[in-house]
Amino acid sequence: MKQDIILLGHGSGGKLGHQLLDEVIAPTLSGISQRDQDDAAVLQQGGQRLAFTTDSYVVDPIFFAGGNIGDLAINGTVNDLAMSGARPLFLSVGLILEEGLPLDDLRAILDSMRKAADAAGVRIVTGDTKVVPRGKGDRIFINTSGIGVFDHPYELSGRNARVGDQVLINGAIGDHGMAVLASREGLALESDIASDTAALNGLVAELLHGVGAAVHTLRDPTRGGVATTLKEIALQAGVDMTLQEQTLPVRAPVRSACAILGLDPLFVANEGKLLAVVAAAAAEEALQIMRRHPLGQQAAVIGDVTGASAGRVVMRTTIGGLRAIDMLAGEQLPRIC
Amino acid sequence: MKQDIILLGHGSGGKLGHQLLDEVIAPTLSGISQRDQDDAAVLQQGGQRLAFTTDSYVVDPIFFAGGNIGDLAINGTVNDLAMSGARPLFLSVGLILEEGLPLDDLRAILDSMRKAADAAGVRIVTGDTKVVPRGKGDRIFINTSGIGVFDHPYELSGRNARVGDQVLINGAIGDHGMAVLASREGLALESDIASDTAALNGLVAELLHGVGAAVHTLRDPTRGGVATTLKEIALQAGVDMTLQEQTLPVRAPVRSACAILGLDPLFVANEGKLLAVVAAAAAEEALQIMRRHPLGQQAAVIGDVTGASAGRVVMRTTIGGLRAIDMLAGEQLPRIC
Repeated sequence: MKQDIILLGHGSGGKLGHQLLDEVIAPTLSGISQRDQDDAAVLQQGGQRLAFTTDSYVVDPIFFAGGNIGDLAINGTVNDLAMSGARPLFLSVGLILEEGLPLDDLRAILDSMRKAADAAGVRIVTGDTKVVPRGKGDRIFINTSGIGVFDHPYELSGRNARVGDQVLINGAIGDHGMAVLASREGLALESDIASDTAALNGLVAELLHGVGAAVHTLRDPTRGGVATTLKEIALQAGVDMTLQEQTLPVRAPVRSACAILGLDPLFVANEGKLLAVVAAAAAEEALQIMRRHPLGQQAAVIGDVTGASAGRVVMRTTIGGLRAIDMLAGEQLPRIC
Repeated sequence: MKQDIILLGHGSGGKLGHQLLDEVIAPTLSGISQRDQDDAAVLQQGGQRLAFTTDSYVVDPIFFAGGNIGDLAINGTVNDLAMSGARPLFLSVGLILEEGLPLDDLRAILDSMRKAADAAGVRIVTGDTKVVPRGKGDRIFINTSGIGVFDHPYELSGRNARVGDQVLINGAIGDHGMAVLASREGLALESDIASDTAALNGLVAELLHGVGAAVHTLRDPTRGGVATTLKEIALQAGVDMTLQEQTLPVRAPVRSACAILGLDPLFVANEGKLLAVVAAAAAEEALQIMRRHPLGQQAAVIGDVTGASAGRVVMRTTIGGLRAIDMLAGEQLPRIC
């Protein structure tokens, strides 16, 4: 690490974040393998396979178009479990409240959490609340950790992407990040863009029921967006990928807002999207399963795994060029989740 | 709730904290029962009983005599699992870092976490890191969540305290809270007082191996101290308790520091202590088991369960009077864990 203090970019999910994980956190906390960057740990316990994951939410603002920090915290952790292939069962909730937080805001956030948990079919079973003085926090931070169970023998991982696989996404990209940014800055585009925050465990269950072992990798492209997430998978599996720009779903208001603000939707966070790396023979069936689901109607095949190497990702642009895709370098949009 | 904003006292573990839990959090997050205030949730899953718990750590300062926020976060969650009677197995770590945190501080904290996890025999299996801008956090907050498994059929709960039971503690009280306070204020007493932070799962395993079903309740008296914790148990079980002040172990430097500062050690936080409510017939054996363990050499019987009622706790003082013991009302020492 060239720096000797923590920078905002270390929270980006991009290159600085990976550097912090690889060079400081993973070597010290021996149990966390730096090579295993899947969203949840898979544990063998008492003859069953469990998934276990944790995420802290520090999004700013805490209320935004389409959601708030509460449903985001439920859906995000449900999705991390679902991406491992597990069925999410139990969540914990850890609240860090800043002195002065209006109780009505807290009630609204908790209410969203309960509704999101009910919608996802998970139970909040344990919790903790801490309070910090004014100026030592920022209204509310939420940690949710979760336990899931595997109902099937499939092993999903970023390691399992294989040459020839197709890359699918369940819908349009960039909505969450642009909704948070719009709410934060009070931009007029706010009315057209809302967060896509949603629990994807139902969609994942249908995918696994339908095409099972053909699903090699699932990953939700949150911090760092689709570009960073695909680069992570390519590096983890040691494969190359080629994206087709013309197939990548981006809603018009998101595309316009990104153009105005100089942002690339490929790097903007999503909270209700998944990338699926699927064996070619099952890709069409996987696509149809997604499209029949309410959260997958705009699903598309956006690329494929083209070769084995050191993790090169390129995008064929709409005008026919090839553009190299890398991870987010620093911090494009801080505190997006 | 009379207030319409969050106050520091809502984080105390005392009356205001209970009010927040009972009137705002529990009714909204339907899965968390307000009557069930044990430290971990007990889950039936796939034919085995699991314990699941979460805690966020916001202690100030982050380094103090005897420990730092890192080993505190490991030991605290290990202890919450152990108090349920479970064997702690897996931990998650969620870091919220403030921009500007020195990397050397982070390395020292992570190193303490690893050592504490190794000492407790638990594995850190998953993690998450977020960064917030300067002035929106306070150096580092840590959430640890944990999963444990039950190796025995015993069901421990605050509900299970019964008339005639003896109340035991494994050693002297008040060290953690006074060590943090001394480090925070730069008091000279710092050299004599160090946090008692320690993992109690080994001691609990020996207790359960030795006297098993006779152990009705285990609880670690952290925020709010021994007084608040015993009042919680008394209310949860619907019993009365009588403490004997002369049997309550308090180390001389802690007693002096409390006297100077006008604090009552009964309400000061501990991080390496447990209260055990044990059937009278097994109390002497439980005491001997504790005393043979390195973390229980000053163990003592400090009181008993005297009757069934609405949770009255009294202390017979050294001069023979009876003093009513209630929960901490507001906030005595904020950000003690």
